Formats: sequence, C-alpha cells, structure tokens
Amino acid sequence: MIYFDNSATTKPYKEVIDSFVTVSSEYFGNPSSLHSIGGQAEKLLLQAREQVAKLLTVKPSEIYFTSGGTEGNNLAIKGAASLNGNRGRHLITTSVEHPSVRAAMEQLEQKGFEVTYLPVDKQGKVCVADIEKAIRKDTIFISIMHVNNEVGTVQPIEEIGQMLKKHPTILFHVDAVQSVGKIPLSIHENRIDFCSISGHKFHGLKGTGALFIREGARLAPLFSGGSQERKIRSGTENVAGAVAMAKALRMTIEKRAAGIERMKKIQSMLRTGLNRIEGIRVNTPTENAAPHILNFSLCELKSEVFIHALEQQGIFVSTTSACSSKRKSPSKTLIEMGVPEALAESAVRISLSFNNTEEEAMTAIRAIEKAANQLRKVLE
Amino acid sequence: MIYFDNSATTKPYKEVIDSFVTVSSEYFGNPSSLHSIGGQAEKLLLQAREQVAKLLTVKPSEIYFTSGGTEGNNLAIKGAASLNGNRGRHLITTSVEHPSVRAAMEQLEQKGFEVTYLPVDKQGKVCVADIEKAIRKDTIFISIMHVNNEVGTVQPIEEIGQMLKKHPTILFHVDAVQSVGKIPLSIHENRIDFCSISGHKFHGLKGTGALFIREGARLAPLFSGGSQERKIRSGTENVAGAVAMAKALRMTIEKRAAGIERMKKIQSMLRTGLNRIEGIRVNTPTENAAPHILNFSLCELKSEVFIHALEQQGIFVSTTSACSSKRKSPSKTLIEMGVPEALAESAVRISLSFNNTEEEAMTAIRAIEKAANQLRKVLE
Ligand SMILES: Cc1ncc(COP(=O)(O)O)c(C=O)c1O
Ligand SMILES: Cc1ncc(COP(=O)(O)O)c(C=O)c1O
Repeated sequence: MIYFDNSATTKPYKEVIDSFVTVSSEYFGNPSSLHSIGGQAEKLLLQAREQVAKLLTVKPSEIYFTSGGTEGNNLAIKGAASLNGNRGRHLITTSVEHPSVRAAMEQLEQKGFEVTYLPVDKQGKVCVADIEKAIRKDTIFISIMHVNNEVGTVQPIEEIGQMLKKHPTILFHVDAVQSVGKIPLSIHENRIDFCSISGHKFHGLKGTGALFIREGARLAPLFSGGSQERKIRSGTENVAGAVAMAKALRMTIEKRAAGIERMKKIQSMLRTGLNRIEGIRVNTPTENAAPHILNFSLCELKSEVFIHALEQQGIFVSTTSACSSKRKSPSKTLIEMGVPEALAESAVRISLSFNNTEEEAMTAIRAIEKAANQLRKVLE
Repeated sequence: MIYFDNSATTKPYKEVIDSFVTVSSEYFGNPSSLHSIGGQAEKLLLQAREQVAKLLTVKPSEIYFTSGGTEGNNLAIKGAASLNGNRGRHLITTSVEHPSVRAAMEQLEQKGFEVTYLPVDKQGKVCVADIEKAIRKDTIFISIMHVNNEVGTVQPIEEIGQMLKKHPTILFHVDAVQSVGKIPLSIHENRIDFCSISGHKFHGLKGTGALFIREGARLAPLFSGGSQERKIRSGTENVAGAVAMAKALRMTIEKRAAGIERMKKIQSMLRTGLNRIEGIRVNTPTENAAPHILNFSLCELKSEVFIHALEQQGIFVSTTSACSSKRKSPSKTLIEMGVPEALAESAVRISLSFNNTEEEAMTAIRAIEKAANQLRKVLE
C-alpha cells in the first residue's frame, strides 16, 4: 500500500497513540478538579501547552487547544468579527481558502459583514498589492492560508505581515493547517494575530488542534461555559489529545529538516515522471509550492475514475481536497488559477508525508502511466 | 484510592481505549476520502452513529458527533437562536443550569435576545407551571437540564415535554450530560428537539460527545466548512473518538439497571452515614435525585479545606462542579435552592460511578467523620 493522501489525513505516530493511552488511562482526572488527580491532569495540559508554544516559538499563554483546524478557523474568524464588529464590518480573504474559512466568511456575510475575496494568479498566489488595495477604513480582519490544500501554493505570509505593520488595527489570521512541519513560519515576526493548526495533519490524532492567539488580540468564544482555556474555549479539556498533539508536533519538527528534503526529492521525481506521461498536466506550480503536494490532471478523465484505477494498484490519492471530494464539484482553487473546467474536473492530488519513499514514487509513476494508458484506451 | 468525583469526569473503560487505539492506528483514513481507506473510516463512523442512535432510541440521522457537552449545549442554544431569531427573541431556562448553558444564554442576551431564568424550589427543582407561565408569543427556545451536576436534582423533563406539546413551535433542549446511563429518558416521547451528551461522563474519552437534533429541528452551525455531519458540524471527524463514545455508551447502558441499583444503595448508605455526623447537612434532596450525586455541607468549613483533608485519606471528591471549583464562588445551585451562603461555601460533592463499592462508602463515611472532627477541633 502506498498512502499518498497525507493532506487529507495522516497515520498517527505510534508514540502519539501511546501517549494518548497513558494519559487517558492513568491521568484521567478533570484538570479543573481541586484534588491531585485533577492536578496531575492540569500539569500535563500545562506541559503540552508549553511544548506546543516552544515549538511554534510563541508564549504558552498564546496557545488555545481546539478540536481541529475547522474549529480554529471558525473561532478566529467568527470570534474576532463578533468582538470587533463595532470597529468595522469589512474582511479580506482569498478566493482559494479552505471551506472552513470560506464558509465562516459566508456566514458573516449573512450577518451584515462585507467580505472581499481576492483573486489569485496562475500559480494560485494572492498578490500583496491587491490585499493592500483592498484595505478600507472599516477593514478589521484578514485571513490568508499559508499553504493551499489543493495545489500546495505557498502564500506570501511574510510580505503580507510586513505590509500589515502599517495597519496595526487589522487582525491577521493565518490558516497554517497544511504548512505546519512543512514550511517554517515565524508567527510573531510576521505580525500574525491568529494561527490555526490541526493535529491529524501531522501524525497527531483527529479531534485535536490549536489556535494561536497573540497576546492582546481579542475574540468572542464559540463555546462559553466553565471558563477553560482562559474563557476562550470552555469545555472539559481533552488533556490526552493535547498531550498527543504536542508529541506529534515535537516529532514532526524534529524530523522537519530531513523530512522536507526527502519530500522535495520525491515531489521532484513525481513531477518529472508525470510530465513525461502523455495527457498529464501538473497543476502545482514549480515555484512557491509546498514540498508535500503535487496536483495533476489527466485530460478527459474524471478524477474519481482515475483514483479508483490507482487504488486497484494499491495507491491511495485524492481528488483535490478530501472534504469536497464527495460533492464532485471541480476544484475551486484550480478554477481560480484559470485552469479550464475540464482539466479541473480531472484533477488528482498526491500528498506526501515524511514517511514516503522514492521507491513509492517510482512505483506510483509506473502505476499512473499504466492507469492513464488503460483508461485512455477504454475511452477511445 | 477511592474516586468519588465521577461527575467531574470518569476513568475511561479499558475496552473504550482499546477501540480508540485500533481505529486510530488501523482505520486512520479521512471519512471524506474517496478511496477504501477513507471508506473504512466512513463505515466505522456510520456504525458508531447507528449504535448511539439505537442506544438513545432515536434515528442515526438525528445524531451529530461533537467534542463534548459544552459544544453540544452551545451549538443547540446559539445555533437554534441564530436560525430562529426572526421568529422571536425570547428564551427560557432555569437559574441552576451548567455554565455552558448559562454562559451561552448570557452571550445571546448581549446580542439582543431576552432570557428568563426561572427559580427552583428547595429541592432544586423547576416548576412546570412556572415554565408555562413564562412562555410568551415570542418564546422560541427552552433549555432545561435533566440532572443537576451540583446536587443531582432531576428536573421534570417528561412533564415539561408533555406541556410543550401545546406549544409546537418552541424548541426544547435538554442537557443530559449528567443523566445518560443514570436516569432513562425517552427523547422522542418527551418531544425533545435537542439533547446533549458528553463521552467522558460515562467512561468514554474527553473530547467526545453527541448532540441529538430531532429531524426537522434546525440550527445554524458553529463550525462551518467541509460540510461534515450534514453541514451541522464541519471538520474532519474524530472517528476513533466517535467509535469510543459509542462503545462507552453501549457498555454503560448494558450495565445500567444493575449500576443504578448499586449506586442507589451506596448513595443511601452515604446519606445515612453523613446524617449521623455532627455538623453535616446533606443538600441533595431525598426525592427527585439522581442516584450518583450526594452533596453535603460541613458547617463553618470551606469546601477546599475539607476536600484536601479527605484527599489525605485517599478519597477524591469535589467542590460542587469541577469547572467552577477554581473560582471559589459558592455553589450557584445551592444558593438558588435557598441554602445559606455559609453552608453553600462549605459544600462538597460525592459523585459515583457503577464501579464504586459499598466498602468504599463505608471507608468514606469513616474518613469524613474523622476529617470533620479533626478540622472542627482546629477551628475551635
Ligand atoms: C488548509 C486547511 N485548513 C483547514 C482544514 C480543516 O482542518 P480539520 O480537518 O482539522 O478540521 C484543512 C483540512 O481539512 C485544511 O487543509
Ligand atoms: C450538566 C452538565 N452539562 C454540561 C457539561 C459540560 O460537558 P463537557 O465537560 O463535556 O464540556 C457538564 C460537565 O462538565 C455538566 O455536568
């Protein structure tokens, strides 16, 4: 089996699961309980927070544990809009964000907010000057993803952050769900106010995540209640999940340098191999692309058909993003990049982890070639 | 060690953790992925949903997985108010709800909704006639907890549900976090529209929960995005968590009849024992009380002091609710029941699970007596 769908989700590291089990069975207390069983759980939560903060080079008091990337994005966007709506009602984002950003923005539009969805260029990249031009007096919030989940384009977060230093009252949110462990990012240097990450994208567990909230940046909670996570995210804390995520992040960041090199090599092999196959067009740009995603189209063939043909050969890939795969609409990102609809409808995404190998890439290229030839014959 | 803080959180069953591990390591796919690794995860999620639905005697399409009780309560209250706010802006609840209901209501008040907080009697019970009287033309939503988490009072959900049959447009939410597996509840017969449960209160894992949403009842999501959970709760599903919760619920409901009997016996022993100790007053009512909670006060002694004294003897109990324990404000429920502030400030909560034993109760009574005598001497 060759698992090439790591942007949809990753296999949790064994050590991560082990930590989860130990905490769940031996330190099961409620961190809010006053006795030592609660105290032990509280200490573990604190350690997990410190560890995540250190790995992201931020303060522990700036880390809020969530249930995943979708929660982080919704909390940042809706929470900040709700609390800052009196200052202004205009938000800026791109037209290629993940649905959890897009749909949160659309919900805000229904509540009287105005949202500018900026276009992207042929590489899927937003232009910093466009963002600057879109800024108005009533702009309160800008949300830009770091790495696009469908094609892997890296957005110019550093330049945007620098530009935004001229606009200190605008809150800046970065969806870093696809970039953590793949593209380093200086949160504080780039003037980021909110940054979302999700455990299951880096060999942690589903149902875990974190939102960075810069000290001083304010938002209204989506979950109110017992005041956990300093009132920003009430609810009994998933201590074992937080510990497991901290461990996954540590393991990922430790392996990062070597892992990125390895993925770059595999990505480049795949690109070269696929470019040689008749009828295949690679959609992931050659520049400004993350090392783990390679998106391509096989003209005239619907993605689903191709995916199933590859599965027959033990290779697991995706139609662009997992969450839109069942809707069968063509990739929004590709359409926005100007890729013709027919090609966008035949898009396939390969997404890597540190654990993939060059041999897997070679096998995959052969399998893709074989499937492409067979399917084209059927269609002739 | 005697763990008597099961209303704060329970120790997960070993089988529950085992299921979580198996799903996380062997069926780690994203249920939205089109290939078979995703398909297997999707099937497991479906099975978990069917299992939870069957155990609660509702339809699988009425179960939405959440990250816990706080999320379920916030989603039901804010989500329904948001979508039904055009029909009316009045909500009704009690003055003794869990903070996750109370604070959600208060957030709505800030947004222009009006909330009636009904009083309770000396037993902590709300009067059905009071609810009926509070209903106005613009009432859209009523939220009543099933079992109070501080003293164990059972609210008359059945009668409220029957009464509400005369008011078909009012949405009825029940916070059943403390009652699942302890007090049976017919969701459909009692005309309930929304019902929240939380996995970690019945030996499941923290970070898991479910919200029942009656077919036809509508609410706006708190998390929008990839359209998971039929658009009501977007975000990559915590499949292993859902499977683990389904298992915990099945094990709990299988053991329920015997478990309730056992807890009743222990509760009654504790009540008798504590009533014999000088200066102790039991706050949990003798009628209409859940079998697993016994709240008592030791006059003149701050709860924290007593809790630590008991911990010295290996007994773990709580100051009323876990999430308010660090704020050190006296129990809201007790104050609302008319308990004098000095007594409310010295309240201690024992909360049981099916695993506690009569021997533990005997040991606890002796320990409580010893601690009470010692501490009173110090204070004299
Ligand atoms: C860019 C991006 N943002 C947000 C999310 C949502 O994260 P989660 O699946 O943890 O809800 C994903 C993944 O699905 C993603 O790729
Ligand atoms: C009655 C009641 N409702 C809601 C909750 C919140 O549930 P959770 O801890 O899963 O967020 C609790 C427990 O803390 C509770 O006792």
